[in-house]
Amino acid sequence: MPVHSCGDGSVLAAHAWLSRAVEPGNRALWAYVEARGPVAVAAELRDGQGPRRLQQAVGPRAAEDRSMKDLQRARSLSIRLIHPGIPEWPGEAITKMQVAAGGGSEAVVPPLALWIRGPADLATVTSHAVAIVGARASTPYGDHVAADIASDLANRTYTVLSGGAFGIDASAHRGALAVGGVTIAVLASGVDRPYPAGNETMFNRILQDGLLISEWPPGCAPMRQRFLVRNRLIAGLAAGTVVVEAALRSGARSTAARAQDLGTPVMAVPGPVTSAMSMGCLELLRSPGVIPVGTGAHVLEAVGRIGSDLTEHAVGPTTPFDDLTPEQRMVLEAVPKRRPATVESIAMVAGVRVPQAQAHLTLLELIGLVLERPTGWRRAD
Amino acid sequence: MPVHSCGDGSVLAAHAWLSRAVEPGNRALWAYVEARGPVAVAAELRDGQGPRRLQQAVGPRAAEDRSMKDLQRARSLSIRLIHPGIPEWPGEAITKMQVAAGGGSEAVVPPLALWIRGPADLATVTSHAVAIVGARASTPYGDHVAADIASDLANRTYTVLSGGAFGIDASAHRGALAVGGVTIAVLASGVDRPYPAGNETMFNRILQDGLLISEWPPGCAPMRQRFLVRNRLIAGLAAGTVVVEAALRSGARSTAARAQDLGTPVMAVPGPVTSAMSMGCLELLRSPGVIPVGTGAHVLEAVGRIGSDLTEHAVGPTTPFDDLTPEQRMVLEAVPKRRPATVESIAMVAGVRVPQAQAHLTLLELIGLVLERPTGWRRAD
Repeated sequence: MPVHSCGDGSVLAAHAWLSRAVEPGNRALWAYVEARGPVAVAAELRDGQGPRRLQQAVGPRAAEDRSMKDLQRARSLSIRLIHPGIPEWPGEAITKMQVAAGGGSEAVVPPLALWIRGPADLATVTSHAVAIVGARASTPYGDHVAADIASDLANRTYTVLSGGAFGIDASAHRGALAVGGVTIAVLASGVDRPYPAGNETMFNRILQDGLLISEWPPGCAPMRQRFLVRNRLIAGLAAGTVVVEAALRSGARSTAARAQDLGTPVMAVPGPVTSAMSMGCLELLRSPGVIPVGTGAHVLEAVGRIGSDLTEHAVGPTTPFDDLTPEQRMVLEAVPKRRPATVESIAMVAGVRVPQAQAHLTLLELIGLVLERPTGWRRAD
Repeated sequence: MPVHSCGDGSVLAAHAWLSRAVEPGNRALWAYVEARGPVAVAAELRDGQGPRRLQQAVGPRAAEDRSMKDLQRARSLSIRLIHPGIPEWPGEAITKMQVAAGGGSEAVVPPLALWIRGPADLATVTSHAVAIVGARASTPYGDHVAADIASDLANRTYTVLSGGAFGIDASAHRGALAVGGVTIAVLASGVDRPYPAGNETMFNRILQDGLLISEWPPGCAPMRQRFLVRNRLIAGLAAGTVVVEAALRSGARSTAARAQDLGTPVMAVPGPVTSAMSMGCLELLRSPGVIPVGTGAHVLEAVGRIGSDLTEHAVGPTTPFDDLTPEQRMVLEAVPKRRPATVESIAMVAGVRVPQAQAHLTLLELIGLVLERPTGWRRAD
């Protein structure tokens, strides 16, 4: 019989204790818990009777038990701790990670439990989810495409997963939010102190319909190594991973590597080969199996529920928009919603020549999608 | 015995006559000449005794024989007509076309003969040649990358093949010319009247070391259908084809399709997915087997002589340049040769953040590649 059980002896308390006692992403701990159950493992480690390697990982933390305090504090902040057996636990995604980790990809060891904040049900919203990740030092081009793809996916009821960072991550979250979609920020810090603080307003918006999730207990600070461990979870909870902009050395590429470990589609957005921020994507695209994508439709083609997304798309209600050529859509999308823009400025944004832009605008006006004003063109209401 | 032989009864005269009597790219004619020889076929067609289908293709032109006049005029303009049996005939490339055409890809039927203008030997300069093609309505981005890749390839003694058109074609030719390389414009008009006339200065520069070539006799005008027929020859004479910028409907994609027919590598340069001029490349990249490239080194990796290009590169003399990271190279390349530029402008061109650019510039100055001046940075001499 163990001398010390954790907290009230419950599975929940055991998970709370383990999440603080051993740095998440530990494959040996995961296997041991899988074999003996969290309550027994936590008690054993508290007693100093665990396998040597695990006991070393716990170190002096064996003497401490903050599990009940952590759970109480979490409850007061509307944070919950979920684990296998709880309906919200995303079992399908975790099984996928387990299979890959068992097959030799140790880097994708599943999480033992997750700290969660927000109104959505994790299992439900990750049943159709795509990860969109990329550089913090993104360019306006990358931000635009990340937001665009995220909006597209959210419009088709996909959840957008990302890491909450500046740059591409934030643009992906915001793209989903902009169309009222669900988005999840997977954090490397406690969900009570999402990092970076500069994105606080965005995190609050995410919490209205989506989720902040983390393997680390509330109060934990983000540390360098934690981001890499966290990345596997972004890939693991998604049906596919899109890298939008990445320098040659980039955390986004580690997320892509984890998606590859998991056998889920890895996609990359092409960008100018002259832009350092597209070099990582170019290298990804030059490696086997990575799919170039430029739109949400491309992403869904790679991850979509065949016979559902594709058919939906084919039989959905048609609008004047559906009949446009890709170039006409480009021009339409370059027309501002409110303040009119000149044809030159629209041509530049759309990446077409001025005469082409002029021709398309004339057609778009005929079918009622844009209006000509004395100072230029704007969208019709 | 034929009633009418062509011109002086020579093989050359027969080819001169055939090139005017039947629109090039005719597979039936090619097979018939292959079986019976050009002199017999030309005489038979002049006599109205050829196979019905070929006789119809010749039509009233059977009555005419301008072969000697064409050859004489060509000679006076330093234009030669080459055909199988002449050392300059690019036999290896033609065999490749013949094999593919025989295998069912009728669109890549070999040429019967070629009208040529310029000092280079066609067989020699096409032994290592790459086609670079793309949109006429190119963007500055595409022009820059086309010229850059062409310069890279020409620097490594590859010949740059293209179609002489405005936009990407012209940038590719000019990139090769800029480093003193050999470039070939494959035309859809007579080589005495290269099209478009607006590129006349460029065509004259090409003629200093390179070639203008065409299947059509001197004096022929470029016609719409001829460009498509011509495209197979651009792909056929090259070890691989690079598409730099292309709209969704684009002649460059027909050249890429011919390269695919021939089993030679098809490469595409990624560009912003928001640019209409990169949509054709994106679609190419999304189709199986198309290789994303951003540099001459990428192109050589796809088409190169293994153990020659690759080894050369690995064992070549090392310069300070070789040790730079890709991002440092970007920054270095963004530094003007003469007039100093500000760090902000350099950062923008290189596609990196200002603090990064500043850090790289400091390092580049330390290793003697750039100089700081009161108004900014420029390359060291």
